Amino acid sequence: MIEPRYKSEDPNWDARVRASFAKQGAMRLLGAKISELQPGNCTIELPYRDDLAQQHGYFHAGITSAIADSAGGYAALTLFPALSDVLTVEFKVNLIAPAHGGTLVAEACVVRSGRTLTICTVDVCVERDGERIPCGLMQQTLIRIDPK
Amino acid sequence: MIEPRYKSEDPNWDARVRASFAKQGAMRLLGAKISELQPGNCTIELPYRDDLAQQHGYFHAGITSAIADSAGGYAALTLFPALSDVLTVEFKVNLIAPAHGGTLVAEACVVRSGRTLTICTVDVCVERDGERIPCGLMQQTLIRIDPK
Amino acid sequence: MIEPRYKSEDPNWDARVRASFAKQGAMRLLGAKISELQPGNCTIELPYRDDLAQQHGYFHAGITSAIADSAGGYAALTLFPALSDVLTVEFKVNLIAPAHGGTLVAEACVVRSGRTLTICTVDVCVERDGERIPCGLMQQTLIRIDPK
Amino acid sequence: MIEPRYKSEDPNWDARVRASFAKQGAMRLLGAKISELQPGNCTIELPYRDDLAQQHGYFHAGITSAIADSAGGYAALTLFPALSDVLTVEFKVNLIAPAHGGTLVAEACVVRSGRTLTICTVDVCVERDGERIPCGLMQQTLIRIDPK
Repeated sequence: MIEPRYKSEDPNWDARVRASFAKQGAMRLLGAKISELQPGNCTIELPYRDDLAQQHGYFHAGITSAIADSAGGYAALTLFPALSDVLTVEFKVNLIAPAHGGTLVAEACVVRSGRTLTICTVDVCVERDGERIPCGLMQQTLIRIDPK
Repeated sequence: MIEPRYKSEDPNWDARVRASFAKQGAMRLLGAKISELQPGNCTIELPYRDDLAQQHGYFHAGITSAIADSAGGYAALTLFPALSDVLTVEFKVNLIAPAHGGTLVAEACVVRSGRTLTICTVDVCVERDGERIPCGLMQQTLIRIDPK
Repeated sequence: MIEPRYKSEDPNWDARVRASFAKQGAMRLLGAKISELQPGNCTIELPYRDDLAQQHGYFHAGITSAIADSAGGYAALTLFPALSDVLTVEFKVNLIAPAHGGTLVAEACVVRSGRTLTICTVDVCVERDGERIPCGLMQQTLIRIDPK
Repeated sequence: MIEPRYKSEDPNWDARVRASFAKQGAMRLLGAKISELQPGNCTIELPYRDDLAQQHGYFHAGITSAIADSAGGYAALTLFPALSDVLTVEFKVNLIAPAHGGTLVAEACVVRSGRTLTICTVDVCVERDGERIPCGLMQQTLIRIDPK
């Protein structure tokens, strides 16, 4: 699917999305940061730590999902009106290879931006020693919450 | 679907599963604990903290997914032979209501235990003031990793 | 998850749902019938034919999904106001065992009925020689379309 | 995710895959055809008919899923050894826009080809009057069945 190019209606989209991300206690706990933000796209990075791992020392599938979910949510939010907010309806993620060490990188793009629902796909790679190994793939549905 | 009753082939299943859970750095970071464990079932609990939340103060969807994923993985592992291990292939989760405060409870049960693949469903509720509010529903596929 | 009990607001729900089902050309092509209908529940049955199969003679995963999708959609529709309609947002299905011969039975129940979105789970079994073998499990999100 | 380029180990992959597709009674019933086949890719087309529709005259979500599921399965099968076969483990599909009339086109590509499991994504469009409107997006897990 060719990724569509988007334009945000809200001139303040960048600051608005970063302010929302800054309020996510969970992203702070994990140590995740937004490394790229464009209308319809958001990339989140997370350096490896032992306390993000499962029993074999790989990134925990839930942690991988957490940054992919936030990346998709913020990719969606870039395109919303100034006062609207976003909630995850559901997502599905395949863990396509174990991710150990290095930095986890979740790149989200909006594939369909509707009035109520937004669909994103998120590619997750692990970057290590200059290499990028795909480790996760998410397909996600989000809902726009408008002010009453 | 009527939940099947299972019997583990490994007499040591309980200690084996708890030892694996204790190695998950991510569960320690979040503050999650196993509260029930039976062959084919695992329940994980996680008390609310601000640093587990998204921008509105609800449990982050990724955190909800993380404990649901571990619950499903360990429900599967109870039924595996002593030397086998488990990896998540994929999961899909619906966030059916925002979960705020209280304790998040993820109850996993194995619905199909095959030689290679195991399928689990996980119900996630938030327990608060003696009430249980359903907040998530996961359907998950896991793979058994046998020693070489 | 304990299945909630529902009451429809529309006294005419049964006739309304059956009329909509009768308009689904695809269900007629396959030979599928509604065998049970209650507020929040719908069961669809489909007897085996060779032209519903994949390369090994099992029910095709897409055919299994088609009746499960309709069952979920109509379980949702039982609870909607008289003039509203339903569309599938997305679903995820596990094919937990090959289904050959007999009758495919898809039992859907609503697990969450919101103003905009409805979540269903659908169990699919094959009934043959008095036995019921679970063969599929779906988790589905639907959207209510209200008249303008 | 950059789509990987694949090479099949089996020189006879094209004839092998087409022979398997020809055995799918369900694809014949629907009127679906393979329109493109490469190692790691398969495209299936399905012209609109009323008996493939749901209650509003759109392609039924289950029919859309059926051709997407076959496209993914055969994209996977192109890469398998000569005597191996493929089964769908699970898939998740978003119906991103109603598809009415024209020809439904499901383009599958393998994103990860492992020894046991293969992951595909499938884009579904409707082609009408020279336009292509995206209408579905699938993420699918398949298992390789080796001869005993």
